[in-house]
Amino acid sequence: MLKAIVTVMLKKGIFDPQGRAVQNGLESIGFEKIRSVRIGKQIEIALDTQDKGVADASVHQMCDKMLANPVVESYSFEIKEI
Amino acid sequence: MLKAIVTVMLKKGIFDPQGRAVQNGLESIGFEKIRSVRIGKQIEIALDTQDKGVADASVHQMCDKMLANPVVESYSFEIKEI
Repeated sequence: MLKAIVTVMLKKGIFDPQGRAVQNGLESIGFEKIRSVRIGKQIEIALDTQDKGVADASVHQMCDKMLANPVVESYSFEIKEI
Repeated sequence: MLKAIVTVMLKKGIFDPQGRAVQNGLESIGFEKIRSVRIGKQIEIALDTQDKGVADASVHQMCDKMLANPVVESYSFEIKEI
């Protein structure tokens, strides 16, 4: 079985209000030296296949069609044996 | 400058309704062979320090105090030079 680990982040330059809120929160409880915080999603997909090529093509399609919004988000993924 | 890349996932065995909804969505648009989907957060923190030891200790504290809920979530992170 294969597992795809997909990371979806807002593109550079897109304002990330959730990250900003977490940065403010961390600063408010005493953490200094934080330059920025950005928050994205990590999506782990367990796939019933052994073929890495098939898995790779399939996960690309999943990202393009549903997991990421190409207007504001970019994605990357790796595929591991489990 | 250092960047911490923190991954926060629900612990194994904790039901992940968001992941289940995404799995249903993917299946509804034709993706088969999906055994499970689990969704977590990826938090990227840019830190104004060069000391990896300080950064490591600081990010552990951030996770324990704010970024992860230790009852239902586990976290891991790596620290990179940027």
